[in-house]
Parts: sequence; C-alpha cells; structure tokens
Amino acid sequence: MVTTLHTQTNTTVRLARRPSGMPEDNDWSIADEPVERPDPGEVLVETLYVSVDPAMRAWVSGAQTYRAPVNPGDIMPAAAAGRVIESRDAALEVGDLVTGDLGVQRYAVRPARVLERITAPVDALPEHLGVLGIAGITAYIGLHDIGRLKPGDTLVVSGAAGAVGSAAGQIARAFGARVIGIAGGEEKCRYVVDDLGFDACLDHRDPELASALSAAAPKGIDVYFDNVGGDVLEAALDNLARGARIILCGAVSQYNSERMAGPSNYMELLIKRASMTGFVVFDHRDRFDQARAELSALLSRGELRADLHIRQGLHQFPTALRDLFTGTNRGKVLLKTTTNNADRAENGATR
Amino acid sequence: MVTTLHTQTNTTVRLARRPSGMPEDNDWSIADEPVERPDPGEVLVETLYVSVDPAMRAWVSGAQTYRAPVNPGDIMPAAAAGRVIESRDAALEVGDLVTGDLGVQRYAVRPARVLERITAPVDALPEHLGVLGIAGITAYIGLHDIGRLKPGDTLVVSGAAGAVGSAAGQIARAFGARVIGIAGGEEKCRYVVDDLGFDACLDHRDPELASALSAAAPKGIDVYFDNVGGDVLEAALDNLARGARIILCGAVSQYNSERMAGPSNYMELLIKRASMTGFVVFDHRDRFDQARAELSALLSRGELRADLHIRQGLHQFPTALRDLFTGTNRGKVLLKTTTNNADRAENGATR
Repeated sequence: MVTTLHTQTNTTVRLARRPSGMPEDNDWSIADEPVERPDPGEVLVETLYVSVDPAMRAWVSGAQTYRAPVNPGDIMPAAAAGRVIESRDAALEVGDLVTGDLGVQRYAVRPARVLERITAPVDALPEHLGVLGIAGITAYIGLHDIGRLKPGDTLVVSGAAGAVGSAAGQIARAFGARVIGIAGGEEKCRYVVDDLGFDACLDHRDPELASALSAAAPKGIDVYFDNVGGDVLEAALDNLARGARIILCGAVSQYNSERMAGPSNYMELLIKRASMTGFVVFDHRDRFDQARAELSALLSRGELRADLHIRQGLHQFPTALRDLFTGTNRGKVLLKTTTNNADRAENGATR
Repeated sequence: MVTTLHTQTNTTVRLARRPSGMPEDNDWSIADEPVERPDPGEVLVETLYVSVDPAMRAWVSGAQTYRAPVNPGDIMPAAAAGRVIESRDAALEVGDLVTGDLGVQRYAVRPARVLERITAPVDALPEHLGVLGIAGITAYIGLHDIGRLKPGDTLVVSGAAGAVGSAAGQIARAFGARVIGIAGGEEKCRYVVDDLGFDACLDHRDPELASALSAAAPKGIDVYFDNVGGDVLEAALDNLARGARIILCGAVSQYNSERMAGPSNYMELLIKRASMTGFVVFDHRDRFDQARAELSALLSRGELRADLHIRQGLHQFPTALRDLFTGTNRGKVLLKTTTNNADRAENGATR
C-alpha cells in the first residue's frame, strides 16, 4: 500500500565528529537529503518524536558499548515514534503508529519486523518513548529482575529526576519500598519528593553525600539503582546493607570524561556480601509485555507520574542531548520533529 | 579432664601499632605471658599451626571489614590448629585436635563450641588450615555458589600461586573449565602451569596484561576469581564474556595502599551484562561439609595439589605475613609454632 509522500526532503542529524567532553552543536551536521524508498518488507515512517538518551553520549565516543559505535557520517541512532506513510510489508499499514530505532531524522526506511506497532492515540506516543517505553521498562526490569527488590527494602535511585530514575523510584514506592532519590540541587530534590512522591531526596552536590545517605538510610541501602556513577556510586557503596544489590544502569556523570573514575571503595561489595550487576534492557524482551502492563496500571491509578521535557525540531538535538548532562531536564527528554505555535512557547519546558 | 601443662608461659603476638604500607616487624609485639585457665565450657589448646592470610592486613588497618577491626594491644586473631591440653567441656577431650580462631599465640583458651574437632592425624593439620580449611572451601564455594561455574567455562584466577587461587584453579580444571592463572613472574607462572596443571598462566607484571588475557581467552572470561584487585581486575574487566561473573574474594594488591584504586572500567559490567559479587565464606557454613568432602576426594585422586609455605616459630609472624605481599609464597602460608632442626633447614621453603 502506497500513499502520497507530501515532502521529498528528509532532514537528518548525522555525527560530524566525535565530541570531546560536553557535545557541541558543531559535533553534528544537520542536512536536507532525499527521502529513501522502501524495498519489499520495508516501510517508510514519518518520525514524530525522538527519544534523547544519556547512552547516546557513549555511542558516539567510539568506545565499545552494548551496541556498535556510531561513527562520523552516520545518522544518529535513536529510539523514536512515528507514523507509517508507505508500506511494502503486510504486517504494517499506512497510518499505523510505530516505535523503533528510526534515528534522528524526519523520515526513516526500516524493515517492518524491527518496528513495534503501538495501539494508542498519537497523543500517547511520548509516553511510549518514556514511561511505557525503554525508560520505564528499564526501571521496572532493573528493580525486579536485577535488583530483586522486596517490599520494605530501602532503595536509593540516582538521577532521580530523570526518565529512568523517576520511574524507578515511583515503581518501587508503589511496590512497598522506602525510596531515597539523589538529584542535582534543592529545586530538583523538592520536585522528586513533592511531585514524584519519593520518601526523601539528597543533593548529589552535597560534599557530605555519604554522611547524608547514612542519615537517610540508617539501616543501609538494600538496592541501589545507579544511573550516574562517580562520587554518588562511592557514597552508595559506603552505605550498603548486608546482601545489597547494585543495579548498574548508567554513568551519566562520567560519559563526558576522557577516563572514567572507578569506585575506589568497591571492596564494600565484599564487606557487605553485595553484588553489582550491569544489564541492558534489550536482553529482557520476554519481560517487556509484563513490564508495560504493570506500568500502564500504575499510570492509570495515578501512582506513576511521567513528566516530559520536549524540545521542538530536529535541529534542537544537540541542545536536547546537553540538557541531560547539564541537569536541565525533569523526566523524559524528547524531540518533537514538527513545530507549531502552541508548542513553541513551551520549548524545553517540562510538561 | 585436666592434664599437666608443661609450660606456664604463653607466647603472644599482639598488634603494637597500625602498619603504614607494608607491615614491619615493629608493628607487632611478641611477649611471654602467663597461660590463661579455662572456665567451665572452655578448653585450653596448644597451638601447633597458625594460618597466615592476606585479609589480616585489612583487619589491622582500622578499616571496617567483614569482622571487627584488630586494635593495637589485641592478640592477632588467626585461624589455627592445635591440640586440646585441658578441657572443661564434655564435647572435647584432652588430645583432641581442633581448628578455630586461636590467634597468633602458643596457648589459647576458647569455648569448646567455637572449635571444630579434626579427625585426622596431626600430620594432616596443615591441610586442614589450607586446602581442606578456609582457603580450599573459599575457592570451592566462590566458584560454585558465587561464580556459578559451568564445565567448558573459561575461568581466570588471580593470585594463582596462592592458597585460594591455586585451589580455585585446580578445582575448576577438575570440573571441566579452561583455567588461566595470573601470578607474579615467570617462575611462578611455570609452577602454576607445570605443577598445578593450569592451562595457562600470565604474569601480572606484564604491562600488556589486558592484551595477553585477550589472546589467552579469545572468547572472553566467563568467571573471574579475583584475589588481587588493581590493574589485574581492570585487565579482566576488559576481557569479560557476555554474562560473566566476577567473584570478589580479595584485593591483595591494594591492602598496603592508603587509598584503594577502583576499577575505572567497571562499566564493562554493563556492556557485558556481568556481575561482580563479594562474598565472605563464613556466611556459607551449611556448605562446608560438601566442600570439604569434594576437596578430600580431589586430594585423594591426586587432582589437587596443596603446597605449603611453612615458617617456624611465632616470632616469624611478621615475616610470614610479608611473604604474602612480596610474592614469596607458593601455596598456603603457615607458621609452625614449634621449631625443630629438621624443619629449620626448610624455613620459608615450599614443601
């Protein structure tokens, strides 16, 4: 089935050079290119929302990560959501909404089999890139499958105002854990406690963070969900309970560094008979349906708040990526590929 | 039941001050003191062999470890084996051989219930402090319960010529794993391969250790049994297979440092979906009997060689402890409390 393509121009965001430290605008090249045509088995998708994630910084570093490095000249990969506008596969029809790795671009040609059809109105697409997408599922699987969280446990979550951290803390609280967030600055900490409902939140800039954690978690940390690494990881290691589990999900504090700092007190893992386990959510696809069902239930009961930090237009990609590292965002960072007047007023604001 | 005590003098080794860096002779005070008498429920034990272990360096540092810190003035704790010479408890008779924390001293009074009776001839006591004692059991439980070793796995063991490392590699090889040791220097590596039967051994002093590991374990490391920490841990992290398990047993390379170095590449745990788990063997007492039975079977089949590095006399304690950190020992380091002419010639030699 073929529909009329209203534009012949694709806007692409390609890596121009490997960033050094904080990514700059000039590390990317944004260009207009011809739209590709789908081959049999493929579909053409118009991208509507693009997920902007901390791991992107690692992908463009040239280092080995859990996926192939992104090289200069490549279109920047990204989880995204869009609408099928041309289909050469029976599994998808024109008009279907889908998510998948569409890249940071306006139009993407992809095999139908790598995309996931979303049966929700277009207004719900941002949630399907956030709390019902990889961020929320990562939080859910991290807590349950890797962290083996139990009701009554004390959970500490870093990056608590971010997409994964905010979901993790709320999921854990609804599950019966005591939840302490760690976030950047007083204002964000107020947001984490007042709006997200965490039991407490500590400022990662506090030079006495380890002591503050000890006061906030006097019986020790049973599960630590680490999104940031660095000093915060060390402070958490200093405060583990016997048998603690550390979920290694990210290291946002380190991604812009030339050489990562390792936790000098890692032998706390021995003293406390604790474990530190890395995971990549894509290994756990057999658990996605259950995760999404439980996240949807929490959302509908009002126990899960999923804020969005939306920037308008693909050209805002470098800015949106920096938002993750400058502590600007609360909740999920997204690019909306189209701009309109109503939205423009909110550009970069949390909705 | 009471027997005649042939001496009224106990020789004790007490911590005199906390060592700074490598422990010195003057960090300990060795004195003659009156022998204590047992109360009801207690026994008096004549110590015959004292186990000398790397963890002792951490106990005397004042840092929090898995046991209470040893303070200046305290008799140095130590696993040891001896003979009951006076009993005020029905569970033990004069002449019984026992192991337990007797401390670095000639005579110890202990509650009978904290000691373990050994039904073996006195000649076998060294094995009961080594391969059939905590070192061997630590290797066994670390590999099976923490590392979940499978036949066909590639195991890397650091401290491969030491008591725990040499046992771990041999147990794993008998279990069907491919075993690569890491030890200090060419001569030790030859010992690990030729005498202990490891498949390969790498020198931890090799500045290209990570590359050497990559060549020796081209499919990656499934299980890494870490006794040393530091650069060796980093080299192992750089070469993990997907789903690898790191058993955190010790950090001998770091115990004499003021501040431990953390593994800067710990995020390899995420990339490889791997885990790093600390354990303390005393949490697993319900597994000791099975471990000891399997270790005995390996010993009797000649599949487990358990070398001893014995020094004579309690006054040699500081030297024996340093042996662990200077790379002098092969196998289990022990003090024999009594000296005799035949033994003296072998002082410090591997038997």
